[in-house]
Amino acid sequence: MKIVIIGGVAGGASAAARARRLDEKAEIVLLQSGPDVSYASCGMPYFIGGEIADRKKMAVQTPQSLHDRLELDVRVNVKVQSIDTAAKKVSARNESTGEVYEETYDHLVLAVGAAPFKPPIPGIDRPGLFSLRSLQDMDHIVSWLDKKAKDTKDLHCVVAGAGFVGLEMVEQLVHRGAKVTLVEMMPQILGPLDEEMAILLQNDLVAKGVTVITGDGISEFKEAPEDPEASILTLGSGKVLPAAHMTILGLGVRPDTKVVKDAGIEVTPRGHIKVDEYLQTSAPNVWAVGDAVEVKNPLLEGEMWAVPLAGPANRQGRMVADNIIRGLVRKYKGTYGTSVVRSFDLYAAAVGMNEKMMIAKNLPYSCIHIHPGSHAGYYPGAKSVHLKLIFNPKTGDIYGAQAVGEDGVEKRIDVIATAMQGHLKVDDLADLELCYAPPVGSAKDVVNMAGMSAQNIVEGLVSQVEWKDLEKLAHDDKTLILDVRNQGEIASSGKLAHDAMNIPLNDLRTRLDEIPKDKHIVVSCQSGQRAYYAYRILKQHGFEHVDNLGGAYATFHSIHPDEIDA
Amino acid sequence: MKIVIIGGVAGGASAAARARRLDEKAEIVLLQSGPDVSYASCGMPYFIGGEIADRKKMAVQTPQSLHDRLELDVRVNVKVQSIDTAAKKVSARNESTGEVYEETYDHLVLAVGAAPFKPPIPGIDRPGLFSLRSLQDMDHIVSWLDKKAKDTKDLHCVVAGAGFVGLEMVEQLVHRGAKVTLVEMMPQILGPLDEEMAILLQNDLVAKGVTVITGDGISEFKEAPEDPEASILTLGSGKVLPAAHMTILGLGVRPDTKVVKDAGIEVTPRGHIKVDEYLQTSAPNVWAVGDAVEVKNPLLEGEMWAVPLAGPANRQGRMVADNIIRGLVRKYKGTYGTSVVRSFDLYAAAVGMNEKMMIAKNLPYSCIHIHPGSHAGYYPGAKSVHLKLIFNPKTGDIYGAQAVGEDGVEKRIDVIATAMQGHLKVDDLADLELCYAPPVGSAKDVVNMAGMSAQNIVEGLVSQVEWKDLEKLAHDDKTLILDVRNQGEIASSGKLAHDAMNIPLNDLRTRLDEIPKDKHIVVSCQSGQRAYYAYRILKQHGFEHVDNLGGAYATFHSIHPDEIDA
Repeated sequence: MKIVIIGGVAGGASAAARARRLDEKAEIVLLQSGPDVSYASCGMPYFIGGEIADRKKMAVQTPQSLHDRLELDVRVNVKVQSIDTAAKKVSARNESTGEVYEETYDHLVLAVGAAPFKPPIPGIDRPGLFSLRSLQDMDHIVSWLDKKAKDTKDLHCVVAGAGFVGLEMVEQLVHRGAKVTLVEMMPQILGPLDEEMAILLQNDLVAKGVTVITGDGISEFKEAPEDPEASILTLGSGKVLPAAHMTILGLGVRPDTKVVKDAGIEVTPRGHIKVDEYLQTSAPNVWAVGDAVEVKNPLLEGEMWAVPLAGPANRQGRMVADNIIRGLVRKYKGTYGTSVVRSFDLYAAAVGMNEKMMIAKNLPYSCIHIHPGSHAGYYPGAKSVHLKLIFNPKTGDIYGAQAVGEDGVEKRIDVIATAMQGHLKVDDLADLELCYAPPVGSAKDVVNMAGMSAQNIVEGLVSQVEWKDLEKLAHDDKTLILDVRNQGEIASSGKLAHDAMNIPLNDLRTRLDEIPKDKHIVVSCQSGQRAYYAYRILKQHGFEHVDNLGGAYATFHSIHPDEIDA
Repeated sequence: MKIVIIGGVAGGASAAARARRLDEKAEIVLLQSGPDVSYASCGMPYFIGGEIADRKKMAVQTPQSLHDRLELDVRVNVKVQSIDTAAKKVSARNESTGEVYEETYDHLVLAVGAAPFKPPIPGIDRPGLFSLRSLQDMDHIVSWLDKKAKDTKDLHCVVAGAGFVGLEMVEQLVHRGAKVTLVEMMPQILGPLDEEMAILLQNDLVAKGVTVITGDGISEFKEAPEDPEASILTLGSGKVLPAAHMTILGLGVRPDTKVVKDAGIEVTPRGHIKVDEYLQTSAPNVWAVGDAVEVKNPLLEGEMWAVPLAGPANRQGRMVADNIIRGLVRKYKGTYGTSVVRSFDLYAAAVGMNEKMMIAKNLPYSCIHIHPGSHAGYYPGAKSVHLKLIFNPKTGDIYGAQAVGEDGVEKRIDVIATAMQGHLKVDDLADLELCYAPPVGSAKDVVNMAGMSAQNIVEGLVSQVEWKDLEKLAHDDKTLILDVRNQGEIASSGKLAHDAMNIPLNDLRTRLDEIPKDKHIVVSCQSGQRAYYAYRILKQHGFEHVDNLGGAYATFHSIHPDEIDA
């Protein structure tokens, strides 16, 4: 059995290692276009910023180490030029020697990955512009920064694209002393999150001195008059940025599948390789894994998506090795998109569908926002976990979740992601039994509270309006905004709306006659819990049209820093 | 509707609050035997040690605050003397005034909790011996410690019982400058864990200067000759401890159910209240929640157990309120026993069945031990997560898990606990999609690795012997112990057995002829991964009887610090 694997990072390396463990006698050839295999691609921003100090750590394996341990035939700096699926062979070119040769296969694994997107913007090939895919890219960025740090007093870097890598690069460039401008074409940073969650990170970036520009793309790079190695960036809006000594292009990735498509292997219009549940492509004995494939979206019957993440790539690689050597024993069930990014002191994590996707697909959904502490409030050091849960208000099925905070963020998303993979519903989140000790949790964990809040909506015990509806409602004569916080809190945190009524929750029962019965009452507090109590009181005292403000003042204020001047 | 609730901490307070939210008009009477309701009982060790500085934080709610927000009729220092389930009334005594009165109910909720076990040991009522159930107990301990710290130079405290509270008290007493002796009757500390996991904590306690005595109970407390307030403890073995200025009795809890049993409500032989899936007791309109009830063990068909933890108590309280007010809408599915404790820098967490229980029940099981890093190895600061997974080797069903380490411990147990609650199997753990970013995870997370290891056993790709079998095997002529670590590692970490053969993994393929084919080969490395690779090589090269050492040298060495002298 001869297995040829194109691509030797996450999915390709995993497939090779598992194949060897399953079959000592297989001939396993790994063709890698660059000089490195199995490198720590997710660690590159941290090496650039200096958090990872040892360059050797970035090359997790070398061709030699893979040969010594796994008897792999690893060939680096080899570009595959074509694939002949009928003759079962690939044509490869050794980029170091220029030699072109053919390699036959019994099974071919396409782990070709995705390449950073480089849009056809005037000046995109100017010096000082970098993408980040390989360790060579990383080394070039470090050299450039080292040189600029010597030559330039006020280093200005632009990061184009506010995705995972973009945000990581912003932080690391700030650590290196640069003034950083983050430019994102979409109206918000970090697309996997919804805007009211992403704004928490954006506000923190601004507080850290980063200039954040959203809803504006780059239309041109021009040589800076004072420095031929610096660039003047003009944005789509006409805005011109101060001369940038470096620009990181973090504009997302595109599947690196030209050779695959040319071979007649089926790809999607966007270039992702089509695979079946066993990760087989349209060509016999050709398999595909990782960033270049389209996978099932397990949350929507019949829907496919592409989710370029290291975890799924690794597991797909392992599965393909099993399917090749042991028969079709492993089915890939789809990718949930579980992910996390650190941005300075904050973590942002997400899984599944976000609200934008639900709206775009015109699906019924409801969402709750909560802001509980990362552990028991009586034990010092708890940090707010801002969590959004998106679910079906009829069935309680969970569509997705997002969380932002300083501590305990990814753990809650891991739990919800696991619950989703076990087809649990919001009822089950309410009942989940999780670890509790004062330094690390609460008797009612954040995830329990999310489940209970959602359960209350599913069961009709509470109803709500969204933060985005509040401005309109505040200007509606038939709506009264009722704030049940204490006066001191409002004075220190801020009001929701100029003419909101304030009755502290503990006074509500004795002051019900101050509230008009014929109006739509929208109740809010700081984080939502007291508003829920107030809702229950009002509904049971004959107020018919009551809603809570989802996420309460905490969510509203993050994205709408001023009170509504109704 | 009138609801009387006996007990106002976790389960009782949750039931009361939810009942009020569901029904504004219900009369809700909460009878609490002590002066405090809804207090932070899990925080008490941390207040004693000074990590929680503000005494007010310990009283999460007060009778007044519960009245103001929830219109609860909270009566503290009230002891229930009897329950008349036919007449639907309780007889209560106000301990402050001596007044005895009757209270009728439509529904009665028993949230009576569990009391610290105080065995009939001679001298158990001596001064300086404390249990820890109430804030008053806590205050007494603090006063005693403050006084002793003034009077005594070398404060010596004994903690009897190495459960959750015992371990927390050990740490906090060390923080307060005491010399601490921990005495545990069972052969190991922290019973929910198995011995090879608990030893990791025990070794750390010893390193922190704590004297740890296991397999020995206290048989007598006697007045110390030099100090009438100090005690001389004699153990069952005859061993006599240095005079103790304080002893904390952390010997577990017993359901506080005398009044319940006297009322003819059905309890188990050990005194736990029997409830059905709606948490109804044997008496009409009488419900029970929390530490005093026996619940389903969801992992074993038909098995019941008692799991005194705050999380389940809280959720049961909420469910009972729903069932009382909205009809039988909530079923309690059982308790998995998800728990965590911090002991100095280590966390230990567990869920489900441990190996001791599996052996006691004579159930088929297999277990794996792994020791991966808490996050990607190339990013600084990763700590080993020592994880044990117990599962059915035929079906892949998960029975339980335990983890110990400095970081990322409870998060992995939360994920596995959620997987168990979603009836996922080891295959699903291998496939779980979890958050990955270099500072907080790995592309193959600890949980994935556990799933993959277990899957390899279920599918017959590897087999193993346990650490406890190694000593016998090392003395067996027909067995060869093969250590595939590098020589340098063995020199610095230690050998498994005097006559173990050493062939580093990377040399194995070329040195196979050195290994006798007719022997039982037991392969080990440091953490298990290389041994697995070696196993696969050996099996495919005609070695028929091969096993890995489960958990490898890391597990073996923790519990067996010296090499086996075969």
